[in-house]
Amino acid sequence: MAAPIATHILPETANISTWGRLFVGGLDVAAIAEEYGTPLFVYDEYHLRKRCQEAVSSFGTGVAYASKAFLCAAMAKLAYEEGMHIDVASSGEAYVALRAGVPADLLVFHGNNKSTAELTYALEHNFGRIVVDSFDELERLRRLANYGHARPKVLLRLTPGVEAHAHEYVSTGQEDSKFGFSIKSGAALEAIVQCRAETSGVQLMGIHAHVGSSVTAIESFEKVVAVMASFFVPLGLPELVIGGGLAAPYMNDDVNVSIRDWAAAVKSAATRAGISSSVVLSAEPGRAIVANAGLTLYRVGTIKDLPDVRTYLSVDGGMSDNIRPALYGAQYEAFLPRAADAERTKPFRIVGKHCESGDIIVRDAWLPEDTVVGDVLCTPATGAYGYAMASNYNKLPRPAVVFVNDGRTQLVVRRESYEDLLRNDIF
Amino acid sequence: MAAPIATHILPETANISTWGRLFVGGLDVAAIAEEYGTPLFVYDEYHLRKRCQEAVSSFGTGVAYASKAFLCAAMAKLAYEEGMHIDVASSGEAYVALRAGVPADLLVFHGNNKSTAELTYALEHNFGRIVVDSFDELERLRRLANYGHARPKVLLRLTPGVEAHAHEYVSTGQEDSKFGFSIKSGAALEAIVQCRAETSGVQLMGIHAHVGSSVTAIESFEKVVAVMASFFVPLGLPELVIGGGLAAPYMNDDVNVSIRDWAAAVKSAATRAGISSSVVLSAEPGRAIVANAGLTLYRVGTIKDLPDVRTYLSVDGGMSDNIRPALYGAQYEAFLPRAADAERTKPFRIVGKHCESGDIIVRDAWLPEDTVVGDVLCTPATGAYGYAMASNYNKLPRPAVVFVNDGRTQLVVRRESYEDLLRNDIF
Repeated sequence: MAAPIATHILPETANISTWGRLFVGGLDVAAIAEEYGTPLFVYDEYHLRKRCQEAVSSFGTGVAYASKAFLCAAMAKLAYEEGMHIDVASSGEAYVALRAGVPADLLVFHGNNKSTAELTYALEHNFGRIVVDSFDELERLRRLANYGHARPKVLLRLTPGVEAHAHEYVSTGQEDSKFGFSIKSGAALEAIVQCRAETSGVQLMGIHAHVGSSVTAIESFEKVVAVMASFFVPLGLPELVIGGGLAAPYMNDDVNVSIRDWAAAVKSAATRAGISSSVVLSAEPGRAIVANAGLTLYRVGTIKDLPDVRTYLSVDGGMSDNIRPALYGAQYEAFLPRAADAERTKPFRIVGKHCESGDIIVRDAWLPEDTVVGDVLCTPATGAYGYAMASNYNKLPRPAVVFVNDGRTQLVVRRESYEDLLRNDIF
Repeated sequence: MAAPIATHILPETANISTWGRLFVGGLDVAAIAEEYGTPLFVYDEYHLRKRCQEAVSSFGTGVAYASKAFLCAAMAKLAYEEGMHIDVASSGEAYVALRAGVPADLLVFHGNNKSTAELTYALEHNFGRIVVDSFDELERLRRLANYGHARPKVLLRLTPGVEAHAHEYVSTGQEDSKFGFSIKSGAALEAIVQCRAETSGVQLMGIHAHVGSSVTAIESFEKVVAVMASFFVPLGLPELVIGGGLAAPYMNDDVNVSIRDWAAAVKSAATRAGISSSVVLSAEPGRAIVANAGLTLYRVGTIKDLPDVRTYLSVDGGMSDNIRPALYGAQYEAFLPRAADAERTKPFRIVGKHCESGDIIVRDAWLPEDTVVGDVLCTPATGAYGYAMASNYNKLPRPAVVFVNDGRTQLVVRRESYEDLLRNDIF
C-alpha cells in the first residue's frame, strides 16, 4: 500500500480539488486526456519557466538547457525566452533550436563524435561554443580553419576521473569513458597545448566536465569542481562548465535537490578551490528543468488478475513512449488523476501494449482499489527522456505533447498519424 | 583476438572477394555506404525471400511473418509475395501492411491491449484472425458484435506455463505474463466457454501460445507443444499456432537453428502429442526471417585510446538505431567490409554518438589493427529490432533502409531529414 502521490514530484502548479481531481496549469488533467487522447505528454509551462529562471538566477546567463532531455521547437523557444543558452548534442538538436528562433551564438555544441559536416554546420552558423571532445575533433577543426572557416570559441571536455554513484550507463565522469580528454593520462594537457598553438584553428575559452546523470550526491559535484580546479586555475582561462547531471525526484521518497542548492554548492566549492570570482562558472541542467514538469497520461485498457501471482494492468502506450524502466530499471509512481488524493491500496504491474514482456512501465505500482478499465492513469515525472527517446516500435504513433498554463492548453507537438509511419517509405 | 567474421551470421549472398571486400547481393558493401551514406540498414533481398519460402514450405501457407521484428511497406509486400501471412501487433502495423497491398484476410492481429478503435478497424477490414488476449478483449468483441459487426475468426492466446531460458524481458511462456489466458488457473477454459457461447460475437478457430524470444533450445518448443496438446486436443479445434521466438545467430559462436529444423521438431512433437494431421499447425517467425538478412553500416568518427584501459571507437549512429545492446545486453560482432577476411586482432569498445555513456554498440569488439577514422564499419545480424525500435534520441534522423539484390540497390525507406524532426511541431 502506498500513500497518495507526493506533491514534490508533481509539476509546480499541481493542485488537488476537493473532489480529489488533479489540476495542473488550472486544468483538470483527466479532461486534458479526453480532449487530446492518450497516450499524452502534458507539461506545466509555469514549472518549465520557473526552473529556467532558477537556473539563470543561480548560475547566471551562461547556463545552458541540456536539450537532449526534452526538445521540441516550443521547448527550445521557452528556454531561450527565459534567458538560457541551449546545449545541443547533434546538428539535429541544433537545427530544431535554430528553427525555433534561438540565436546560434547561444548554442553550445556537444558530442563525442561530431562529424565534419556537423562541425561545418556549427562554424557556418557561428555556434556560441563548441565543446571539443577528442583529438580527432581538434584535427577536424584545424582542417576546417585551413579551409577559411572562422576560429570557433571552444571548451575542452575533460574526464575528471570522478565516479558518480549511478547506473553505469549514466556515469560519465570516470576515466573509462567515451567522452573527453583524460586529465590523469596527460591527454587533457596535450589538448590544451594543441588548442593554444597558432595553427590550432580554435579559440580556447575554457574547460568542461560532466560527472554523470541523476546525481543526488552534491559531494560528487563538489569533488569534480575540486579536481577540475587544480587543472583549471593555472591555465588562466575565463570559463568553467561543470555539465549537468542533477537528479530529479521520481518517487515519493526521492529527495529533491534544487537547482539553487546545486549552484550554491558548486560555487562555494569553486571558491574553496581557488577559482577566481571573475571566472564564468556555468552548468547544463536538463532533467532538473523538465522531468517534474511533465506527466504522461495513459488510458487503462485491460486488467488481468493472476491469482497468487500479480495483477497486470495494460495501458495504451509503453516502452515506445518511456523506455527508461526497461533500459535503466527506472522507477515511477502511478496514480489516477480523478483520485489523486486516494490511498493506493492495490498492487499492480503496469505494462504497455507492445508485443514484448519487457514492456513494463511500473514494475510494482500501487493504485486505488477501484481502478477500472477506461480510467486515465498518470505517471508523473516523465518530462525527461520520455518523448526524447520515443520510438515507433510496433508502429505505435508517438504521442502528442501539450503545454498547459493558466487554464489554457497549447498543442506543441501533434500526435503522429498512421500516414506519418509511412512518410519515408518508397513503394 | 577474433577470427574473421563467420559466414553463418551474414546474409545468404554474402561473398568475400579475393581482395577481402564483402559483397552482398552482388554489390560491394562499403560502396553502398558511399552511395547512401551512413548509418544505413542494408538487407539482402534474396535472403529475406529464401527465409520466407523456407517458412512456407516448412509450416504451410498459414505461417505468418512477425512484422514487429522489421516492418516497412517493402518488407510487408515481400513477405506477402512469398506466401506468408502477416502477424501485426497494433493497428499501425496493420495499416502499413494494408497500404503495402497485403490483403486484410492475411493479417493476424496480436496484442495484449487492443483498443476498441483497433478492434473496430480489424472488424471493418475483416482481418484474417484476431488473437484474443484477455477477457476485457472478449468483452469488447462481444459488444462490437452487438453493434452489428461481423463475428471475427479468433484464436485464444494461452500461457502454457513453460519458461524459455531467455532474458526476462523476452520470456513470455510463463504463467506470470501480461499475455494471454493461463491454462493452470482455469482462465483458458473459461475463455473457451465464453467464446463458444451463442452470444460471444466470435468464431473460435484455435489456440495460440508463444514461449519467448531468441529461443535456441528446440526442447522449449517441444515442451510447449506437449503442454498445449493436452489442452487443445479435447477441444477439437482446427488451428494451433505455436508463435515465434526462434533465435538467430548473432555471434560467430552462436548456433543456427533453421526454420526447417524448428518446424520439423514442432510437427513431430505434435504428432507424438496426439495432434491430428488435419490440424493446421502454424507459427510466426520474425527474427529468424530478418535478423541475418540485415547489416548496419556506420562510419568510424573518432578513435580514442585510453592507455591501460581500453580503446573507444565512435560511429555515427548508436542507441537510436540499435537499442538492443543497452536494453538487453545484446552482443554483436563487428568488422570492416573492406577487410572482411581479416584477422581481428585489436580490442575496441564500439560506441555511438549519443550524449550518454550507455550508448554502446559492441562492448568488447575486435577489429583489424589498421582500423582508422573514416572506415566503414559493419555490425551484422542487425536486421531484427534495430530499425523497428529506432528513435530520434538526440534528434538523430533515422537511417535509410536499402534492399540489395542481384547487383542492384533499392531504397525502400528514405533517410529522415532534419525537417522530418519538426514535422509535427507547432510553432
